[in-house]
Amino acid sequence: MRVARRVTEVRAAVAVARGAGQNVGLVPTLGALHAGHFALMDCARCECQFVVVSIFVNPTQFGPGEDFERYPRPFERDLEACERQCVDLVFAPEAAEIYPEGFSTQVNVGALGSILEGKLRPTHFAGVCTVVLKLLNIVQPDMAYFGEKDYQQLVVVRRMVADLDLPVRIVAVPTVREADGLALSSRNAYLSGQERARALSLSRGLRAAAAAWEKGERDPTVLCQLVRKELEAAKVVIDYVAAVEAETLKPTAAGCRECVLLVAGRVGTTPLIDNLILGAKGVSE
Amino acid sequence: MRVARRVTEVRAAVAVARGAGQNVGLVPTLGALHAGHFALMDCARCECQFVVVSIFVNPTQFGPGEDFERYPRPFERDLEACERQCVDLVFAPEAAEIYPEGFSTQVNVGALGSILEGKLRPTHFAGVCTVVLKLLNIVQPDMAYFGEKDYQQLVVVRRMVADLDLPVRIVAVPTVREADGLALSSRNAYLSGQERARALSLSRGLRAAAAAWEKGERDPTVLCQLVRKELEAAKVVIDYVAAVEAETLKPTAAGCRECVLLVAGRVGTTPLIDNLILGAKGVSE
Repeated sequence: MRVARRVTEVRAAVAVARGAGQNVGLVPTLGALHAGHFALMDCARCECQFVVVSIFVNPTQFGPGEDFERYPRPFERDLEACERQCVDLVFAPEAAEIYPEGFSTQVNVGALGSILEGKLRPTHFAGVCTVVLKLLNIVQPDMAYFGEKDYQQLVVVRRMVADLDLPVRIVAVPTVREADGLALSSRNAYLSGQERARALSLSRGLRAAAAAWEKGERDPTVLCQLVRKELEAAKVVIDYVAAVEAETLKPTAAGCRECVLLVAGRVGTTPLIDNLILGAKGVSE
Repeated sequence: MRVARRVTEVRAAVAVARGAGQNVGLVPTLGALHAGHFALMDCARCECQFVVVSIFVNPTQFGPGEDFERYPRPFERDLEACERQCVDLVFAPEAAEIYPEGFSTQVNVGALGSILEGKLRPTHFAGVCTVVLKLLNIVQPDMAYFGEKDYQQLVVVRRMVADLDLPVRIVAVPTVREADGLALSSRNAYLSGQERARALSLSRGLRAAAAAWEKGERDPTVLCQLVRKELEAAKVVIDYVAAVEAETLKPTAAGCRECVLLVAGRVGTTPLIDNLILGAKGVSE
């Protein structure tokens, strides 16, 4: 496994792989790798002959007062994990390699990036889009892998890729959960034991809504209320609970055949999100 | 010469050229082709084995009240011209092919796109950047050719390409002028005979400034004043006259070794721009 710090090294390594007729997969991450990331890498490993993992805590997708500084950066452990996952190339740039002096370009996806998580974090998705676009241009993969855990991010990235005619396929990988239902997140490391117990209310609420859906409940307000009830019981500060259309993220109409439940809240100072896809595509768990 | 209306046709044709080991050049245009465009095509033809010209009057780079509707669209004549120029592929999409329903992504380059022409036309460079990025992603050329006539556009596109790590070389081609100095522009077609005479004040003013520069004048205010004098004498409404640094477009300091004079004004309802590069890179005429 090779570790590249510079864009030129990545381009050279990918060119060699391309020259050997290999297809290329990219797994973009912020590091602090966990089983959710490993699932992305497994998918990439299955489909691609040359697998690139980027590890970059992208400053522009953190807002003022967010956890950019304290975001975990266990770099050596991440490298060992990538090695175990049979990754071919890790791209771990310094911030100055990604944002050199004079950098000023920004990509926005409009409304999709300004609702829900984007309403809480107004600069977040512009930061995500811009860095993902850069990574896609640097690596030029055939496929790039994103977790369904960050559902809105997935939709936003797909929108950008379609709108900008990027020649890459975005592959969604189902959320990985702990045995008790907690969705894996690098931010779970912030939780105390007691906070972790309260954080379980997100997946518990989603499961309650899924059970109601299975029994025929199709009123989005009722479904969201089932989620809210669990969060409130656990004293989780609710940022939003929404039942939305899978691609537009617009509120679903009552009686819909498919919807995605999105939930975001805070346990202490830790922001947590989770979601569940109901209906046509099947529950993603 | 092939004419493609669809993105998929372009990708297929370029893939065939790539498969044959050819390098690819793109000349993006709004059509209404003139000798300025032909110079771009000549450069592309010299350097590239497969030359693509796009013809698309991009609605998003026109502001409200601008000339989108009346912009000339002599499509058959443009195709004949491309044929004469030995172009391999013309990409002439409908607006719906470029901006299908749900399209919402926008690329901005920050300050570079909001000064000078961007101050007059606040949405212009976002429109330019977004469509150019799409064209670059659709064609995936090795080189793309832009005229120095639209100097700020050239700088903005280069900024975007650098910032987004696009694997393309942006080639600048010197402005083509009529014998009397008028910079070629598709918008010159709007000018009456008398207006055309007044429009000559832009190039005349720039030449006066260049003559002063040759004699050692390095005060940007004095250089700009020489341009303004000609415009005022011709009763051209001045939008801006600026002496700027070649890459940052920031005002040049007195005593600079190099600067670009940018001028924009209106003759009747016709907006005109022109510029001259002074110093290190030599006068571009």
